[in-house]
Amino acid sequence: MRFELLDQDPRTRARRGRLHLAHGVVETPVFMPVGTQATVKAMTSNQLQDLNVEILLCNSYHLLLRPGHEVIGRQGGLHKFMAWDRPILTDSGGYQVFSLASLRKITDDGVTFQSHLDGSTYFLGPESAIDIQRALGSDIMMCLDDCLAYPATHFESDKSMKRSMAWAERCKTQHLQNKELSDGLPQTLFGIVQGGIYHDLRKESAERLISTDFPGYAIGGLAVGEPKPLMYEVIEQVETHLPADKPRYLMGVGTPSDLVEAVALGVDMMDCVMPTRHARNGWLFTRTGHIVIRHAKYKEDPEPIDPACGCPVCRTYSRAYLRHLFIAGEILSSVLNTIHNVFFYLDTIRRIRQFIVSHRYDELLAEVRQEL
Amino acid sequence: MRFELLDQDPRTRARRGRLHLAHGVVETPVFMPVGTQATVKAMTSNQLQDLNVEILLCNSYHLLLRPGHEVIGRQGGLHKFMAWDRPILTDSGGYQVFSLASLRKITDDGVTFQSHLDGSTYFLGPESAIDIQRALGSDIMMCLDDCLAYPATHFESDKSMKRSMAWAERCKTQHLQNKELSDGLPQTLFGIVQGGIYHDLRKESAERLISTDFPGYAIGGLAVGEPKPLMYEVIEQVETHLPADKPRYLMGVGTPSDLVEAVALGVDMMDCVMPTRHARNGWLFTRTGHIVIRHAKYKEDPEPIDPACGCPVCRTYSRAYLRHLFIAGEILSSVLNTIHNVFFYLDTIRRIRQFIVSHRYDELLAEVRQEL
Repeated sequence: MRFELLDQDPRTRARRGRLHLAHGVVETPVFMPVGTQATVKAMTSNQLQDLNVEILLCNSYHLLLRPGHEVIGRQGGLHKFMAWDRPILTDSGGYQVFSLASLRKITDDGVTFQSHLDGSTYFLGPESAIDIQRALGSDIMMCLDDCLAYPATHFESDKSMKRSMAWAERCKTQHLQNKELSDGLPQTLFGIVQGGIYHDLRKESAERLISTDFPGYAIGGLAVGEPKPLMYEVIEQVETHLPADKPRYLMGVGTPSDLVEAVALGVDMMDCVMPTRHARNGWLFTRTGHIVIRHAKYKEDPEPIDPACGCPVCRTYSRAYLRHLFIAGEILSSVLNTIHNVFFYLDTIRRIRQFIVSHRYDELLAEVRQEL
Repeated sequence: MRFELLDQDPRTRARRGRLHLAHGVVETPVFMPVGTQATVKAMTSNQLQDLNVEILLCNSYHLLLRPGHEVIGRQGGLHKFMAWDRPILTDSGGYQVFSLASLRKITDDGVTFQSHLDGSTYFLGPESAIDIQRALGSDIMMCLDDCLAYPATHFESDKSMKRSMAWAERCKTQHLQNKELSDGLPQTLFGIVQGGIYHDLRKESAERLISTDFPGYAIGGLAVGEPKPLMYEVIEQVETHLPADKPRYLMGVGTPSDLVEAVALGVDMMDCVMPTRHARNGWLFTRTGHIVIRHAKYKEDPEPIDPACGCPVCRTYSRAYLRHLFIAGEILSSVLNTIHNVFFYLDTIRRIRQFIVSHRYDELLAEVRQEL
């Protein structure tokens, strides 16, 4: 993997870059829609391409349970399996193990857990997390980390961070061993900064990862319930410890305004289920706020979701129709709402990039803050 | 509306024709996918166009209840509402009133019934059935008819047929009155032959409709549980009473082989929920029979649904992936399965047309019968 730094806004830390990955080039800042179970819920791979989605995130945990990473490996990998020939980032499975699975038992070796689907027992350690992602064949793999809930004490956060850093080293070792065996496309492995809300722990985590040396660094353990200002503060602190020539990925964030704020703090990559999950619940993003499409006031509204939006849904369908589909429980409701919301996120990223290269990112920040 | 008879197979009653409707030309024989609630479940209007769907059927009953035909009328009609600019046929609502609604009370005036959604009371008579379809703005409207379950006695079938014929006359009167008022696109109204499984009643029904004079004739009251040979026998009988220069529409039929058989008996138009409903249940049509995609044997099957199929799903995705989507309960499962099954039905129609114009329809019939 190669990361080019193309431009830098003069008055914020926002930056434009370019990731060269096994399945193609990704411009940054970038938003990665989430394709949990090898599908971005309700969208075909063609529809994703038509919206110019550059890179997807898929969840190792879900694919490990169903259909199984070996199955996907034998089908030629995740790209072929889901008919997506652009880059894919996979997470390690750690976050879902800690949030979805039951009867977890954590040791320094890894996590033993029961599937949330059928209760069967699995083990996930740093080595197997890498092997799973190798079978999936993602462009970017993530290290297994120990994910704490918020709030957590300094003591808990310290212990958890140190375990994550030890796992990160083992992930890298396993990845290097696999590379020697593999004749496949080159995969790249990112480290994840942990340490909760504690600056000293975040600093130590970043330094340990940098000494292990990864081609990219993620900020994990945020957007887990902490107040927004605290989240931004942690990002701002962590960023000062990360090398400028490596991409920075803020995991699981966030709202459209979070995207703008995080980029201002030097973040290059983000992912979130918000556009897709909210779409299925009828929550639609617009430049002037969101609309809840089930509301009675849209029953006879002939306007598109957002008159300023150029997405295929806004160019074609009225709020009245979209409300009808939602109320009637039609599958097409999820399809069209998802297309709109994903387009909205990508459009936000397009604006972010434009404001960076015109060196006016502070104007975009001011605009977004005023809207709130 | 204008109907051109283009060609006639020499050894069967199969015929090629062309319907000129307000929203465009439809080649016959034609299969109409069902867009119950102003959407063919799980497909966008773009995807329908890409498959070359020529005409859709929508259900007045469902649209009357939700969002209401007046709402759709004020939105500019069904075509604009659902972003579909090709022809639409609407049924009268009668069939769903008799199969879905509760607490029905039928008189010669019409039917009072309670919505299956919220129990609220509606009245549907021949005049309102026409007014509802006028508000929807469909290209082809259907007369309200009294729909009997199978089996029904001669006495019941006679009474029901006579009521349907009286309603058909009133539908035509209402339609002619509306036409004088309307400045919209020209709509056309088809009559429906009833009479159950009784030849004398079917003959009387056809003759009464022809004397009332409609631009097209449907065969109703079939595919309601009667044995297949009996259904074909009724179609064959009814066809002898219908004028050759008018289109014939067999309502609610059927399987792919039903399509081939019905066309051999002189049918021009058909509709059925089978391709779309079966798709959502993971039942996929192929030239060599159907496959049930959830079966374990497809877990690692890299083949497309049907290697002989040229649909976008078969050109892109494996059975292994489609099985995974179905098992995982993903929305995309319904989307992709529906695209395949609708394509399969349209492809069957393409073959039907080819065999008619090459005057070898008996070969297609023989082939289909051998497969069964």
